[in-house]
Amino acid sequence: MAPYTLTYFPAKGAAEIARLVLACAGVEYDDKRVTGQDWASTEKSKSPTGGAPFLTTDYGNFSQSLAIARYLANKHGLGGKSDEERLKADMVVETLKLDIAQKFMTAHFEKDEERKKTMGNEARDKAETLLGLLNSNCVSASGFFLDSGISWADLMLFNIFTDLLPLASASLGVTLTLDNYPRLKKVYDNVAEEPKVKKWIEIRPQSQF
Amino acid sequence: MAPYTLTYFPAKGAAEIARLVLACAGVEYDDKRVTGQDWASTEKSKSPTGGAPFLTTDYGNFSQSLAIARYLANKHGLGGKSDEERLKADMVVETLKLDIAQKFMTAHFEKDEERKKTMGNEARDKAETLLGLLNSNCVSASGFFLDSGISWADLMLFNIFTDLLPLASASLGVTLTLDNYPRLKKVYDNVAEEPKVKKWIEIRPQSQF
Repeated sequence: MAPYTLTYFPAKGAAEIARLVLACAGVEYDDKRVTGQDWASTEKSKSPTGGAPFLTTDYGNFSQSLAIARYLANKHGLGGKSDEERLKADMVVETLKLDIAQKFMTAHFEKDEERKKTMGNEARDKAETLLGLLNSNCVSASGFFLDSGISWADLMLFNIFTDLLPLASASLGVTLTLDNYPRLKKVYDNVAEEPKVKKWIEIRPQSQF
Repeated sequence: MAPYTLTYFPAKGAAEIARLVLACAGVEYDDKRVTGQDWASTEKSKSPTGGAPFLTTDYGNFSQSLAIARYLANKHGLGGKSDEERLKADMVVETLKLDIAQKFMTAHFEKDEERKKTMGNEARDKAETLLGLLNSNCVSASGFFLDSGISWADLMLFNIFTDLLPLASASLGVTLTLDNYPRLKKVYDNVAEEPKVKKWIEIRPQSQF
């Protein structure tokens, strides 16, 4: 039996960072994708905080997407090789996910059209500043964020620019690429060329979100 | 020389969780509080991602408040005693900080009064659901979230209900207490009675935020 079951919807969404970690680490797991109906009737109550995704382990069920991805990364060699590398990975992830991607998603779901436009522009301006800082200050000579090589922080950059931002950018009419951030572009390309990640992207179930 | 310098404004804000971790662990540090002017002119450029707080260590400077607090907690015995305890602490922190406190803060800063009222009510409803789940599913017989005792997840509960929510609740006209969540109330009380935390609360600089 696989050591983990990851339960989520038939979507990339908040679960894909954990799937990328598991794929990159070459860890077997049950990639359980449930309908909204099954979620409500049987699965939701298994999530300790009621949210998706949740991870089933020999030690029980755990929810919250960043907590799950960090756990899997630390457990399987993608969390950093020292306390300070783990801190740096967390710093990069927090910036990418909460300060960049989350602002785009909040704007994406805004219903007031005028406000949505303003929020989209603000998210882009903020993202450009932060990407500039990550590019200048946070990429290692290894071609990844950490000196020791690929980690879940790199996978988060890949996840956000492959899966999350394109959708939000289209709905917001703003463009965000890595073209002006050559070191980050290199990180992205290095992740994309990682054989196990490449294979996962080829075989993963297709979904819009 | 103290092993860490924590640089932030003369405020509790996003830095207080790290200060609570350091206080509870009994670790010496330089609690550097700078004006907005000093931040802009000399400090901001030392933060890898441009944000406050940042932590100065023998290994360089690191930003992002949750990343910093997690690092200090793991380094000084307040992060959990196993991979799964660390995951549980992260799960609780993510729920408390991002799904509860952040929604109140976003509502607090909303300028449109009507919208602010709606957002405040939504934040309260969401928080009540999540606090119910944390109360039922996530508190250990130890009287803390983790079986092994006090951790930064408990300190986050304390921080949010002592420092962050009262301000937002007042501005939003909504009330959120732990009265309906007896196990969480016990966690809060256990933190408040922890001698090193108690002492920090007595001696810490006064500030509204």
